Amino acid sequence: MGLLPVIAMIGRMVALFALLMLVPLGFAWFDHDRGEDAFITATLITFGCGLVMSLATRRFRRELQPRDGFLLVTLTWLILPAFATLPLLLAMPDLSFTDAYFETMSGLTTTGATVLTGLEKLPLSVNVWRCFLVLVGGMGIIVLVVAILPLMGVGATQLFKSETAGPMKDQKLTPRIAETARGLWAVYFTVATACFLSFHWAGMGWADAFMHMCSTMGLGGFAAYDASFGAFNSPLIEAVAVFFMLLAGVNFSLYFLVWKKRSLLVLWRDLEARVYFPLMIGSVLLIAAFLSWHGVYPTFWESLRHAAFNVVSIATTTGFATVDYAQWPIFAPVTMLFLCSFATCAGSTGGGIKLIRSLLLHKQAQRELTRIVHPRAVVPVTLGGAVVPNQVLASVQAFMLIYGSVMVVVTMLLLFSGLDLITASTAAIACINNTGPGLGQVGPANNFQGLTDFQTWVCTFAMLLGRLELLSVLVLFTPTFWRR
Amino acid sequence: MGLLPVIAMIGRMVALFALLMLVPLGFAWFDHDRGEDAFITATLITFGCGLVMSLATRRFRRELQPRDGFLLVTLTWLILPAFATLPLLLAMPDLSFTDAYFETMSGLTTTGATVLTGLEKLPLSVNVWRCFLVLVGGMGIIVLVVAILPLMGVGATQLFKSETAGPMKDQKLTPRIAETARGLWAVYFTVATACFLSFHWAGMGWADAFMHMCSTMGLGGFAAYDASFGAFNSPLIEAVAVFFMLLAGVNFSLYFLVWKKRSLLVLWRDLEARVYFPLMIGSVLLIAAFLSWHGVYPTFWESLRHAAFNVVSIATTTGFATVDYAQWPIFAPVTMLFLCSFATCAGSTGGGIKLIRSLLLHKQAQRELTRIVHPRAVVPVTLGGAVVPNQVLASVQAFMLIYGSVMVVVTMLLLFSGLDLITASTAAIACINNTGPGLGQVGPANNFQGLTDFQTWVCTFAMLLGRLELLSVLVLFTPTFWRR
Ligand SMILES: [K+]
Ligand SMILES: [K+]
Repeated sequence: MGLLPVIAMIGRMVALFALLMLVPLGFAWFDHDRGEDAFITATLITFGCGLVMSLATRRFRRELQPRDGFLLVTLTWLILPAFATLPLLLAMPDLSFTDAYFETMSGLTTTGATVLTGLEKLPLSVNVWRCFLVLVGGMGIIVLVVAILPLMGVGATQLFKSETAGPMKDQKLTPRIAETARGLWAVYFTVATACFLSFHWAGMGWADAFMHMCSTMGLGGFAAYDASFGAFNSPLIEAVAVFFMLLAGVNFSLYFLVWKKRSLLVLWRDLEARVYFPLMIGSVLLIAAFLSWHGVYPTFWESLRHAAFNVVSIATTTGFATVDYAQWPIFAPVTMLFLCSFATCAGSTGGGIKLIRSLLLHKQAQRELTRIVHPRAVVPVTLGGAVVPNQVLASVQAFMLIYGSVMVVVTMLLLFSGLDLITASTAAIACINNTGPGLGQVGPANNFQGLTDFQTWVCTFAMLLGRLELLSVLVLFTPTFWRR
Repeated sequence: MGLLPVIAMIGRMVALFALLMLVPLGFAWFDHDRGEDAFITATLITFGCGLVMSLATRRFRRELQPRDGFLLVTLTWLILPAFATLPLLLAMPDLSFTDAYFETMSGLTTTGATVLTGLEKLPLSVNVWRCFLVLVGGMGIIVLVVAILPLMGVGATQLFKSETAGPMKDQKLTPRIAETARGLWAVYFTVATACFLSFHWAGMGWADAFMHMCSTMGLGGFAAYDASFGAFNSPLIEAVAVFFMLLAGVNFSLYFLVWKKRSLLVLWRDLEARVYFPLMIGSVLLIAAFLSWHGVYPTFWESLRHAAFNVVSIATTTGFATVDYAQWPIFAPVTMLFLCSFATCAGSTGGGIKLIRSLLLHKQAQRELTRIVHPRAVVPVTLGGAVVPNQVLASVQAFMLIYGSVMVVVTMLLLFSGLDLITASTAAIACINNTGPGLGQVGPANNFQGLTDFQTWVCTFAMLLGRLELLSVLVLFTPTFWRR
C-alpha cells in the first residue's frame, strides 16, 4: 500500500477544496456578514495545507491503482470534513471540534443531520457553506459510486455491468474516472440549475433557492431554518422539492443516457427506476390514507400534502421535514425509516442498501424457496434478462450482512452510552442510511445537539461508513489489505 | 402433493396426542382439581377426532416422501395446538379460542409467552398441561430439526453433514426418522430426569419440579407462577435452572455421541459448543459488570446472580425471569434479546438463527472482504476443516434474509395495529425466536394478555414460523410447491 502517493493526491484535492470556500465567501461579501474573515482565513489555511501536502509528497506521485482507491476514498472523506470545519470554528467560537466535524461530515456525506439550532441567526455564509457541502458531497458520491467503487469491486452500481464486476488491476484510474465524471457532472449541474430556478420561481429568495437546491440535489437535508421546509409553508415550494428529490433519487447515469439518446424510454427500461417511482407513489398514498384513517389532518388533501413531502423526503434519504411527523401514529414514521433503508437507486446521491441490491436479494430468496421444492433444479438469478453471477450475489449478501451488523453495533454503542432504544436505533438508521433525522431525541423536531461527544463520534463514523458503502471502509481494517 | 396421506399420518398423531393428556389428567385426579372433567372430555374428543381422521383417510395411507414433509410439519404444528386448547377452553370458560390457541402454540413451539395471569390460581392440571406441552414440543422439535428438516433440505442441522445437504427424494422417511428419534429421546429423557430430580433436591415440590423441568428442557419459559422463577427466590434453584438451560441449548445429538463414545471431548470438538459456552459465560459477566457499574444492585454478587439467571434464560430463548430486567438500563435487555436471536445451537430446543448459521455468515462476510482485496483469489469457506459448498452458503444467506424480512413484516403489522415501537419490535423478536417475553407491554413483568385478537394471531403465526425455521412454512406459499 502506498500511503504517500495517496497523500499526494489528497493534497491536490485539499487545495482544490479551498477554492470551493470562495463560494460562501462570495455570499459573505455580498451579505457583509460575520463570516467574511472566517472564510478568508479558512481558505488560506486549507489552500496552504493542501499545497504543503502535495509538495512534500511530490516525488511519490504516481498513477494510483484500484487497490490504492480504498485508502484514497476513506482518507478523502475523513480529511475534507476536517478542513471544512475551519470556517465554522472561526465563525462560531463556541462550537466544539466534535460538533463541527459532525456537521461537515453530515454535509459531505449528504446526511443532513445537524447539531446546530437557531439556524436563521447564523451568518448567511455559514448556512451557504453547510448546504454547499451537500452539493459538493453529492458530486463526489455520484462519481464515487458510478466510476470509482466499481473499479474497486464494491458498490451497488457494479452490479449492472458484469464487465466491471471484477476490478481491473492494470487499468489506470484517473483518465477513465475523469471522463465519466465530466459527463455525470454536466447532468448534475443541469438538473441543479433547473432546481435552483424552480425554487426561486416558486417563491424562495435567491440565497434560499441556492441553499435548498444544494441540499435537495445531494439528498442532504440541511436547511437554513430550524423548521426546515416548514418555514416556507408553501405547497408550491413543497411540490418543487418533492419533484427534485424524486429526480435526485434516480441513477444519474440514466439521465446521461436520456440526454445522449434523447429519449425518456431509458427510464422505463431501467429495472430500478421502474420500481422506484411506483414504490414512492405507492408509499405516499399508503401513508396519506393511513393519516386520513387516523384523523391526523382534517382533510385527505392535507394528509396527502404532508405525506407527499415527508415520505418522499425520508424515503429518498433527504431528511427535510414540513411537520413533526414523529407525532404521527408510529407506523407512519417507522415505515418511512424502513423505506429510507433501500428505496433509492444506485448511482444517485441517496443512501442505504439501494433498490438494485434489494431486488437481487429478493430474487435470491425466491430462488432458494424454489430450490427447496426442486433441489436439483438449476435456477439462475437474472437481472434485466442477464444471468447474475453467483459471485456477485455472494457479494451483495455479504454487503447486506455487514449492513445489518453495523446497524446492530452502532445501535448497541449508542444504547451502551445511555440513549433510549428508539433514539439509538433510529439514529443508527438515520446515520448509516445518510438520511438525517431519526425519531425520539433525534427526531425531526429535535436534532443531534443533545448527544454526548462519544455518541456524536459514533454517529459521525456511522455516516462515513454508510456513505462509502461500508465495505470500502471496513476493508481497511482487515490484515489482508495491509499485507503486500 | 398428497394432502390425504398427510392427513392420515396426522390423524394417528392426534390420537397419540390424546394419550398425552392423560399426564395432566393424572395430576388432576391426584390433586382433585377442577380440571378433571375437562381433561377427560378433551382426551375423548381428541382421541375420537384422531381416530376418525385416520380411518377416513385409511385408503390413502402410504409412505410419505420428503416433499410431503412440508405439509406434514406445518399442519402438525397447526392442528395439535388446536386440540391442545380443548382442556383449557373446558376448564376456563372465560378464555377465548384466540387466547387459548396462542397459549398452546406458545407451549408446543416452546416459546413460553403467555396470555394468562393469576397462574397460581389455575388448577394444577392446567399448569401441568401448559408446561407439559413445552416438553412435548421440545421432543418434537429435536426430532424435527435433527431428523426431518435435513431430509427436506432445510434447517440448520443439515449444515453439518454434506451428505444430507440435498434431500433424498427416494428415501423412505419413517424408518430412518423413527430410529433417530429413539436415540435422541433417550438422551432427552435422561437429561430431563436429572433436571427433575435436581429441581426437587434444590427445594421445589414434586409438581413444581415436574412442571419447571418440562419448561426448562424445552427452553420454553412457562412457569406456574406470575413471578416466574422469582416466586422461588432461591439461588440454588436458580443455579440448577441455569445449568439445565445451558445444557438444553446444546445440540442433543452431541449428548447422544457423548454417551456412545463415553467422552466429553465430543463437546470440545464441536464447533458450535466451543463458541456457545464461552459466549454465554462472557455475556453473563458483561451484563453483571454493566449492572454493577450502573449500581443496579448493591453488590457485584447480586448483579452476577440476576445476570446469570436472566441472561442465560433469554439468550437460550427460555424466557424465565427472576426480576423485571426490563427496568435495567436498556443496553442490558436489548443485548439479551440480541443474543436470543442467534446464541443457541442447532439441534437444541432453542430458537432463532442458531450459532452454526451465524458462524457461517460471519465467515462468508470475511471472505467477501478478502475477495475485495484479492479479487481473483479462491477463498473457500470451511467448517471444521471441510469446505462448505456455495449452495449451502446461499441457502443460509436466504434464510437470514427471510428471517430479517419476517421480522420487519411482523413488526410492521403490530405497529400498524397500534402497538408502540418497543413493544412491537420486541414482540416480533420474542415470538420469531421463540423466546417468550419482550419489552414494553410484553415485558417480563407483563405478558401478551393486553394484545388485540389481531395482534395475538400475528404473534401466534410468528411463533409457528420461527419454530419451523421459516422456509419449511413459507415454501407452502409458493406456487412452485403446489405444481406437480
Ligand atoms: K440526507
Ligand atoms: K422460550
